[in-house]
Amino acid sequence: MLSKNQIKQLTRLKQKKYRQQDGLFIAEGIKTIQELLNSTLILQQLYTVTTFGLDADKETIIDEKDLKKISALTTPNQALAVFEIPTIETHSETGLILALDDVRDPGNLGTIIRLCDWFGITQLVCSEQTVDCYNPKVIQATMGSITRVQVSYTNLNSYLSESVLPIYGAFMDGQNVYKEKLLPEGVLVMGNEANGISENIEKRITKRISIPRFGEIQAAESLNVATATAILLSEFRRS
Amino acid sequence: MLSKNQIKQLTRLKQKKYRQQDGLFIAEGIKTIQELLNSTLILQQLYTVTTFGLDADKETIIDEKDLKKISALTTPNQALAVFEIPTIETHSETGLILALDDVRDPGNLGTIIRLCDWFGITQLVCSEQTVDCYNPKVIQATMGSITRVQVSYTNLNSYLSESVLPIYGAFMDGQNVYKEKLLPEGVLVMGNEANGISENIEKRITKRISIPRFGEIQAAESLNVATATAILLSEFRRS
Repeated sequence: MLSKNQIKQLTRLKQKKYRQQDGLFIAEGIKTIQELLNSTLILQQLYTVTTFGLDADKETIIDEKDLKKISALTTPNQALAVFEIPTIETHSETGLILALDDVRDPGNLGTIIRLCDWFGITQLVCSEQTVDCYNPKVIQATMGSITRVQVSYTNLNSYLSESVLPIYGAFMDGQNVYKEKLLPEGVLVMGNEANGISENIEKRITKRISIPRFGEIQAAESLNVATATAILLSEFRRS
Repeated sequence: MLSKNQIKQLTRLKQKKYRQQDGLFIAEGIKTIQELLNSTLILQQLYTVTTFGLDADKETIIDEKDLKKISALTTPNQALAVFEIPTIETHSETGLILALDDVRDPGNLGTIIRLCDWFGITQLVCSEQTVDCYNPKVIQATMGSITRVQVSYTNLNSYLSESVLPIYGAFMDGQNVYKEKLLPEGVLVMGNEANGISENIEKRITKRISIPRFGEIQAAESLNVATATAILLSEFRRS
């Protein structure tokens, strides 16, 4: 059985400030944990109802009741693991880089990390107000892709001002992306769910692009940021 | 104040069988309700904390407490409206049609309906096991697009067997979609979240297509069905 103090140490990792203080994050579910175990991430401790066959000092067998107490999920899924947050290497300026300007929804960030993985984008640069990639909901949505995509948080304005690459930005009134010659090296900036790309960041954009809308004029106001990212990354890779 | 019986009549609409019995569905939030009011949908009754200025017999002013009782949301958003489920017209066989083979997640269906709206796809044909498009979570996710996309539920196998159009299907091992000549008329079939396109339906596919994966071999196993639909609809429209 877990002590009250152990439970407190684990549940506090649901909050960003404690994840940063402790340098730890949690991952849940057998499949996700297996993927993270097979990566370069360092396991601190695994709490599980059935053994994974790890070294005894790394694995704590618990019952469903304790799992429910420490889980961030409505329906806990057999195991919860605590991993160390890896230190971020400095970004190299090559290939296509995706940048997020204040994306707030954990599900969207999770989907976007999976998309980066699919399309071979290894660098995701996030503004400081973008949702934390070690948020349990993000980890859940990435399905292990977090181990193959390097996510960094920085002052996006400064980052872009120092970049020598072309900076693409997704806007409602940009150039038709289907007709653009997209370069293999560059930064693609996607904006916030409600407000799009902020004014400060807009000034750094060298190429405004847009996904054309078909059908009626009164059609959907905008695409969700994750689906728009899917279409734009596909456009960069197909060309 | 709403009576116990009124609350019961409203909350039962969270379940598909009662929506079908009553021919009614609920929509929540001012923005979504406004969009539905501006469509051909017929309002049965609006329950709201602040007036929309509708005829007195169509609008019931309630307090936050009652709203919480009838809402399907964790954080109710000022109003809940009950609309009649429209009768479905028979599908005409023109243009690009999207077909879903047992998509189960309400968020995915909502995103897909929004994508149809964006890309001017007016017909969405769903297998009988696909999540109900009048599920409150789907209505929430469509953001009004439901009024511009005709969603029908049918035996998908029979439907496809009678179609004279080319039938495209999304598979992990299909032809590279970037290199395919996609026709402007056809049916695009997307499969279930966990299992993809089922065996029965697979036999009806005349063209297997795939979104190529970039980067490492061990990369993400598959794209989420909503993001894959985004990319494929974009491919059909760009060509």
